[in-house]
Amino acid sequence: MTFTGRELRSTIKDGKLTLSLEQVEIDDPADDEIVVRVEAAPINPSDLGLLLGPSDLATLEMRPRSEAGLTFSIPEARLASVQGRLGQSMGVGNEGAGTVVAAGRDAASLEGKRVGMIGGAMYADYRRIKAAEVIPLPDGATAAEGAAMFVNPLTALGFVETARQGGHTGIIHTAAASNLGQMLQKICLNDGMTLINIVRSQEQMAVLREIGASHVLNSQDEDFTARLAEAVEETGATIAFDAIGGGTLGSDILRAMEQVQVRQMAEYNRYGSNILKQLYIYGALDPSPVVLDRLKFGFQWSASGWLLSPFLQKAGPEVVQRMRSRVVDELTTTFASQYSRVISLAEALEPEVLLAYERKATGEKFLIDPSKG
Amino acid sequence: MTFTGRELRSTIKDGKLTLSLEQVEIDDPADDEIVVRVEAAPINPSDLGLLLGPSDLATLEMRPRSEAGLTFSIPEARLASVQGRLGQSMGVGNEGAGTVVAAGRDAASLEGKRVGMIGGAMYADYRRIKAAEVIPLPDGATAAEGAAMFVNPLTALGFVETARQGGHTGIIHTAAASNLGQMLQKICLNDGMTLINIVRSQEQMAVLREIGASHVLNSQDEDFTARLAEAVEETGATIAFDAIGGGTLGSDILRAMEQVQVRQMAEYNRYGSNILKQLYIYGALDPSPVVLDRLKFGFQWSASGWLLSPFLQKAGPEVVQRMRSRVVDELTTTFASQYSRVISLAEALEPEVLLAYERKATGEKFLIDPSKG
Repeated sequence: MTFTGRELRSTIKDGKLTLSLEQVEIDDPADDEIVVRVEAAPINPSDLGLLLGPSDLATLEMRPRSEAGLTFSIPEARLASVQGRLGQSMGVGNEGAGTVVAAGRDAASLEGKRVGMIGGAMYADYRRIKAAEVIPLPDGATAAEGAAMFVNPLTALGFVETARQGGHTGIIHTAAASNLGQMLQKICLNDGMTLINIVRSQEQMAVLREIGASHVLNSQDEDFTARLAEAVEETGATIAFDAIGGGTLGSDILRAMEQVQVRQMAEYNRYGSNILKQLYIYGALDPSPVVLDRLKFGFQWSASGWLLSPFLQKAGPEVVQRMRSRVVDELTTTFASQYSRVISLAEALEPEVLLAYERKATGEKFLIDPSKG
Repeated sequence: MTFTGRELRSTIKDGKLTLSLEQVEIDDPADDEIVVRVEAAPINPSDLGLLLGPSDLATLEMRPRSEAGLTFSIPEARLASVQGRLGQSMGVGNEGAGTVVAAGRDAASLEGKRVGMIGGAMYADYRRIKAAEVIPLPDGATAAEGAAMFVNPLTALGFVETARQGGHTGIIHTAAASNLGQMLQKICLNDGMTLINIVRSQEQMAVLREIGASHVLNSQDEDFTARLAEAVEETGATIAFDAIGGGTLGSDILRAMEQVQVRQMAEYNRYGSNILKQLYIYGALDPSPVVLDRLKFGFQWSASGWLLSPFLQKAGPEVVQRMRSRVVDELTTTFASQYSRVISLAEALEPEVLLAYERKATGEKFLIDPSKG
């Protein structure tokens, strides 16, 4: 039995990025593979980079040809950053969930099961994939519940794991009202790790208080800097995970950490405290450069990128297995995702829909359900 | 026998920083201590922070009282950064060399020996110090030759050690024509580590070529960026040690590293290469914030402070002993320092002399010899 279905593809060529739905025939699964009918796939901020590249969204135009699809122009200066993908038709969508409709010889036990999976190209009717890259969902779980069981849950668990490995006892998180941020708060409450949440509105503060957060700061408040200093004093936080990236917020955080540490020093040291203050930047809500006023935080500081897959590789199979099991166990509690809108594969390419999910507004989260058309 | 001598002291009080020479009586050494007559102590950039604090040099004034000394005003906004030292009379000078004039019972073998030492408060006629913190100089070595055997030599060796521990095979160094930079180049030549030197003038390029450097770039050249890319391509450098700190040079370096790594990738990854690119900032020739255009270098990057003493602590006693022995063995070759001027302790407080060593100009390096007065 062979399957035929649509795959959402993103292609950059001749200075233009084109999004299209390609009709493809799915090859039979190899012995260690399965074919999954995709029933739910979230649109994560991390999917948008591959989907839209460095397109100028203002140039959005309906393709003049007969196929469904959208075309954007890419400014000349930004083309260098995507040199490596020019001319390639790329599948999009990091993760998803669905039902196994065909299985290779070594994966027969998965036949008919509902699974969550990670591996790219999930915005499609069918996905052929190695059995090792999927996780069977607990009985009764819907595809929507299992669609986002990798990126956000493993990232949130990875933050806590990273903090523990570095000997930190308090975490600061920015853009903290996101699905990821809510998971992180629940994990921290459960695991006894202190967490300072930084958000940008009263509404977002309420979302986090609702699930039990004790430290929630609004960066738009006039007295934000003073409140940040107080919260760091109370928690002794020395590690931060920052989704924003650009600007001076990361610098302000490192500075607040250093000030607290310096006050606890018995003896003056002009190089500052000898406690490492660590800033991890994992997102790019603000793509402008990060500006670090480093002389304000001594010499024991570090700012680094944080990315899930290298973290998992470094953590090793045992840690990864432990994290995956926990996600399955707490799928509908700690790791529940909220979606504001469920769209079809075709709708994902409608201009007004695309502009809506591209905004990455907190509280708005889209799920693609290919069965809707 | 007791010793009486002068100590250079820096004190911040009532918004002013005062430098003075205090007459002090040296306590008898404890069993594990010695008293050293200081004969040479370098003025390193790292000494100036404690010496001058955040003073406004334009406010330099001769003290109106009878003692020799200088007074500066400190702008209100900068006082917070030195909260921890207010009112304390602080000795200055990280390292020096001299002759042991008294020794405790357990350190009798050092009596009369010439030693190099580290531990602060070296701008003085005498320094009482633990025997474990000094190293006897090789026979025939002068105090000037042994005066700077800790900070620069251990830092240069520490850079290479840090690079090796991180699995890096090529280093980039900025402000590379300094005494430290020359030591680093000699070590790299000897140890087979590739080094890219970045300097700011033709004269500095010549200094490094003279000692055998093969990669020397002038950041003032119009085609600097292109040359940096070439040099990184040739060497595969993935770690940098930056004395400048402020501005965008560090960002340009990380970007050049990433571009080279991305060109070697078999498959496009929108998160960039999975090779860690590490920037260590160890100086502050430019005190302005560091500006990192991080989206140009993927997610596997890190920028951190680098400081000698925490490095040594982390490296452990075996590594430190190996490094110290090498410094003694190569004291007059690899680790030779050049001084442009030898001044007395009193001259260190003359306004025009102070302004000269405060400039930190490459090629200008001051040595204090208290025996000169």
